[in-house]
Amino acid sequence: MVGKRANSELLHPDRLLPSDPAVCRIARDLLEQISDLPLICPHGHTEAHWYHRDFRFSNASELLLTPDHYLLRLLVSQGVTFADLGVGKGTGGGPIADPRSAWRCFADNYHLFRGTPSRMWLNHALHDVLEVPWALESATADRIYDHINERLESDDCSPRALYTRFGIEMIATTDSATDPLDHHRALATEDWPGRVIPTFRPDAVTDPQRDDFAEQMALLGEQTGRDVGQWRGYLDALRDRREVFRSHGATATDHGVASPQTADLHEATCQRLLTGALRGELSEQECRLFGAQMLTEMARMSAADGLVMQIHAGSWRNHAPSIYRDYGRDRGFDMPMRTDWTGGLKALLDCCGFDPNLKIILYTLDEAAYARDLAPLAGAYPCLTVGAAWWFFDSPLGMRRQLEQVVETAGFCNLAGFVDDTRALPSIPARHDMFRRVAAGYLASLVAEHQINRHEAGKIAEDLAVNLVRKAYRLGGKGVH
Amino acid sequence: MVGKRANSELLHPDRLLPSDPAVCRIARDLLEQISDLPLICPHGHTEAHWYHRDFRFSNASELLLTPDHYLLRLLVSQGVTFADLGVGKGTGGGPIADPRSAWRCFADNYHLFRGTPSRMWLNHALHDVLEVPWALESATADRIYDHINERLESDDCSPRALYTRFGIEMIATTDSATDPLDHHRALATEDWPGRVIPTFRPDAVTDPQRDDFAEQMALLGEQTGRDVGQWRGYLDALRDRREVFRSHGATATDHGVASPQTADLHEATCQRLLTGALRGELSEQECRLFGAQMLTEMARMSAADGLVMQIHAGSWRNHAPSIYRDYGRDRGFDMPMRTDWTGGLKALLDCCGFDPNLKIILYTLDEAAYARDLAPLAGAYPCLTVGAAWWFFDSPLGMRRQLEQVVETAGFCNLAGFVDDTRALPSIPARHDMFRRVAAGYLASLVAEHQINRHEAGKIAEDLAVNLVRKAYRLGGKGVH
Amino acid sequence: MVGKRANSELLHPDRLLPSDPAVCRIARDLLEQISDLPLICPHGHTEAHWYHRDFRFSNASELLLTPDHYLLRLLVSQGVTFADLGVGKGTGGGPIADPRSAWRCFADNYHLFRGTPSRMWLNHALHDVLEVPWALESATADRIYDHINERLESDDCSPRALYTRFGIEMIATTDSATDPLDHHRALATEDWPGRVIPTFRPDAVTDPQRDDFAEQMALLGEQTGRDVGQWRGYLDALRDRREVFRSHGATATDHGVASPQTADLHEATCQRLLTGALRGELSEQECRLFGAQMLTEMARMSAADGLVMQIHAGSWRNHAPSIYRDYGRDRGFDMPMRTDWTGGLKALLDCCGFDPNLKIILYTLDEAAYARDLAPLAGAYPCLTVGAAWWFFDSPLGMRRQLEQVVETAGFCNLAGFVDDTRALPSIPARHDMFRRVAAGYLASLVAEHQINRHEAGKIAEDLAVNLVRKAYRLGGKGVH
Repeated sequence: MVGKRANSELLHPDRLLPSDPAVCRIARDLLEQISDLPLICPHGHTEAHWYHRDFRFSNASELLLTPDHYLLRLLVSQGVTFADLGVGKGTGGGPIADPRSAWRCFADNYHLFRGTPSRMWLNHALHDVLEVPWALESATADRIYDHINERLESDDCSPRALYTRFGIEMIATTDSATDPLDHHRALATEDWPGRVIPTFRPDAVTDPQRDDFAEQMALLGEQTGRDVGQWRGYLDALRDRREVFRSHGATATDHGVASPQTADLHEATCQRLLTGALRGELSEQECRLFGAQMLTEMARMSAADGLVMQIHAGSWRNHAPSIYRDYGRDRGFDMPMRTDWTGGLKALLDCCGFDPNLKIILYTLDEAAYARDLAPLAGAYPCLTVGAAWWFFDSPLGMRRQLEQVVETAGFCNLAGFVDDTRALPSIPARHDMFRRVAAGYLASLVAEHQINRHEAGKIAEDLAVNLVRKAYRLGGKGVH
Repeated sequence: MVGKRANSELLHPDRLLPSDPAVCRIARDLLEQISDLPLICPHGHTEAHWYHRDFRFSNASELLLTPDHYLLRLLVSQGVTFADLGVGKGTGGGPIADPRSAWRCFADNYHLFRGTPSRMWLNHALHDVLEVPWALESATADRIYDHINERLESDDCSPRALYTRFGIEMIATTDSATDPLDHHRALATEDWPGRVIPTFRPDAVTDPQRDDFAEQMALLGEQTGRDVGQWRGYLDALRDRREVFRSHGATATDHGVASPQTADLHEATCQRLLTGALRGELSEQECRLFGAQMLTEMARMSAADGLVMQIHAGSWRNHAPSIYRDYGRDRGFDMPMRTDWTGGLKALLDCCGFDPNLKIILYTLDEAAYARDLAPLAGAYPCLTVGAAWWFFDSPLGMRRQLEQVVETAGFCNLAGFVDDTRALPSIPARHDMFRRVAAGYLASLVAEHQINRHEAGKIAEDLAVNLVRKAYRLGGKGVH
Repeated sequence: MVGKRANSELLHPDRLLPSDPAVCRIARDLLEQISDLPLICPHGHTEAHWYHRDFRFSNASELLLTPDHYLLRLLVSQGVTFADLGVGKGTGGGPIADPRSAWRCFADNYHLFRGTPSRMWLNHALHDVLEVPWALESATADRIYDHINERLESDDCSPRALYTRFGIEMIATTDSATDPLDHHRALATEDWPGRVIPTFRPDAVTDPQRDDFAEQMALLGEQTGRDVGQWRGYLDALRDRREVFRSHGATATDHGVASPQTADLHEATCQRLLTGALRGELSEQECRLFGAQMLTEMARMSAADGLVMQIHAGSWRNHAPSIYRDYGRDRGFDMPMRTDWTGGLKALLDCCGFDPNLKIILYTLDEAAYARDLAPLAGAYPCLTVGAAWWFFDSPLGMRRQLEQVVETAGFCNLAGFVDDTRALPSIPARHDMFRRVAAGYLASLVAEHQINRHEAGKIAEDLAVNLVRKAYRLGGKGVH
């Protein structure tokens, strides 16, 4: 069990709340009001097959360390190499050479994470979820490694058990457009009340710069029986797949793009671009134009079929080519980029910005865009919502800055609440907890400065915790206060 | 009268002051020192004819709701339509179909404004200025609507009476270069001590992309008897109109531009651009170049005639073409843009940046420019002053961020104090009050952290409240501490 | 001596610490732990010849006022002219006409600096270092001027005495690539324990846009006996000079560039650019490309010889040409620019971003880059470190913003601690003191919000004060906690 030390130090009940005693009291009170509300998880990267009855996680390192690019990047920044962690070249995110030795290396370097959200998530997962009674450091590495592995084998740490323990109400996976969704289908037939739904992420068939574009397009044509070499056939194929996702419970699509540039071109131009894309003959600029057009097409389809559209824009994927070559994607070398939303989304908004059935959630890695682009846009266009602080900014100060820079212009009503956006299942409650603490602290400040009253703050706290995200992702529920 | 509830909740005496008790005491004390100082209003959008003896406002909705793009935009963002508010297509900002029903719609949605400055301004106007004793919500909509309309008919809520009650020292309107200024002239002959002065805003005759450019240029030629088709004649015509404005009390010009780009071209090039502009033959880039040249020309004229130059840069006007087509300008769909001041102003500064008679006040919608562009520029060039936090950023945190990002580099001495920039006359005291509270809170922090002493803080508070804005706009007064 | 008034007001013991009493107590405690640690000064602009036995500063104005571009700029921004200060045209930073009269002018305007770090540095230098017992204002100008000059003549205010009194552990000067380092050599032979080392700053021989490029290249060729007209000869000459600097104790190079753009071109292209540069025939774009290539070359050499590479990027030097023409460089008219690090450094990082012997410290004037570029880059690439908040941002809020925007992503371990970056020797303790106070306040907040414990905070405080900077600049020492 987590002893006194862990309680008071590693997981202090007032952690992340404002330190001013009077404001802290208000925040604590607000937090209590929302801390037991269910966890709504409509965007993340856990996998559907984990939720089958007999699935168990392998070991501490392969669960918590090597798939976590936040951890890898900081270790590498301080001279730890992938080899030190047993991550072999060409193995992607797969099994590692010596998980115990990797865990020791991590423990030796755990102090590097002071001041980062990763440490707070890890502490919560270790001490609260996995019931580790010791602080992680070199001396405790082995003991903790064994303890975790033992816990992972037990029934109450299976993904299903964690889903229930955590109070998860629903969780969405993120799936390529051509994913057959077998696991989602199988889960639906099992006798288990969890709600695990897919998300339609068509990047591999909308971005001609992807390595797997040709292969995925071929698969798309095969799956749907459409002629994806023809513009209309291609769009129909996407519509078909969206419908399949919808029939498996999906409420949203997701689009990971370097830039939120959109376009609205004539069909002949679209056909020409598509033909070029399939032949691998597009210039970089034409590839971008193709992607820009596809964002608009996806918005039109969302207006038609009601799937909420998520745009995650502004990540320079695989900035270090040597890391990409040897270790593949998602190893911590994606970098944020400056992002122009106001110019970028213009074509899409001109096309369907006032369609009452369209809903788009915007995620940015450029904090300068919060107050200058996102809040003014979402505070005017009915289809736009500001997504939670994303990735590098899913942190106490990152979330606080977002609230401070968005709410005054766009109100709370144009926010989409919180998503945990993780594949680290054991960290999910830690992430929601962090957001709820930051939200409670922010609202407590507004109460303490007499901008809103305590009663209003309570309603907004519930909105931020559950109602806004349910509304933004069309998950049902009683609506926003 | 505003009852106890309103006092303690809707208009708490310590609202917006720091919540830390010791800092709050200092801030309260500073606020008391400046809260009764006159309101200086050298930039805004009230209209001169309002101040004639018999003018009365029409009704609550047409005064407070439908002309306010802050309110419209947030309502529209949540699915309220212009039709729901009775705003007809093609009516511009004119009368609406059913003002009572619009007010009910507003009341039903008033909770959306929690956390926004609009709500704080409205609460202050409703409960303090218009003496509404009930909180605005669906149940009180009708009662409040009737109460306000009754107040608006009374003598003590006429614009003149409000001017006096508010302690306004002077107020400037914003007028096109060709405005005949009839109302200003008439006011000057009336027996009323108020000071209502015009501001020379020549955008319609300096921006060839405006719909009304040709028409306004013709009018300019007519009014002045100059040949505005000749570069020198055109500049002389502008000089003439500036002189007319000066003779009616104007102390400033205003320039609303997409970008602060400036240029200093040869006369032959200027003539070629002017000829093209009048023929409607300029490319978009040439139009921008024309505007860039005109900023430099306006600076030269300001150095000559002493009119202070305001530059409001970085608004993407009418981002939503469908809204512009149906409902016209200023409906909430202007968006901030990234702005490059340091590169943009170079040509102007090279030309007359050290002229001791030139004074330019810079207003930005790109907060990233505060610390990177505006503070370094204004903290070096003697002609430059940093204007108040503008538009979306005229908010508690917006103002605080500006102070925090400008003062360390440019001192307080290069700030221009506060302007309310509104056409909502009843909200003017609320806006000045908000700024004074934020300023008092910021100064109290500096005192509490022993960066300045209490005595200095008091002097700076007075400077921020009245002296800096008087100096920046050349309104007379005893100067800055 | 500094009397009670100065102690409690001008140099309050809790200045710059958080005002919340509980947080202040933690901060005070942390500050006490680090306030007596030595001052590490590996980047600055004092001069080696100052440290010879008999050197004395001239007078208050020529020491504290006219070489300080922070002071000049703010005075000029408020209408004080260089002539008012006795700074003659064409005199560079040399002697001024009437130092006493300049000092009076400064005293008359000292209130303008309220809220700026300059005032805090000056107050510390005046009252603590120079033992001025009166607050600086018009009435005390003469007295203080005389007092300072008297102090400057005494032995205990010689640069050597100050070095010792301040507890400086080492100080680096900044020297052009062709500097003969005579003073450093002479110092090494004197019987004085101070450590004054040079820094290799080759801008004059890597930036073809510099006025003195041709002359400096000729000198470089002469000094090294290399053919600097040949690409390989040119690189060898730079290697030779780096080796000379290393043999005189240098541990670092420094590169002042407008943009951090890097390139990795074929040798033939490099040769072509070099030939064009020497002939003065490069376009502006080619000059930039030459500079971009040279950053990569410098990184390669650093990976080979171990000199730490500093990049100071984003300053628009001499924005006002009239000031540059009449008064030369460094007169307060350098302006920050928007900076793209993630794209800019790509070529360099692709070339040697994972070389374990390479260490680069990044200094930016674009605060938007902290969270979007620098923290993600330094939090992944092992060669990159985030340099201290620089220039305009070397201020209480500037430093706080940097910590708040970098640490959550990059941890403390990727920071380079603090450098004072000044030629104002008497202000050096004030600058370190300010940083230590801000760091203590930031860490106290983390403790008060239960993110780290008090013990960890103490270790991090020591790291920030001395260990991180020693490590980043390879100065030796026991390493980081």
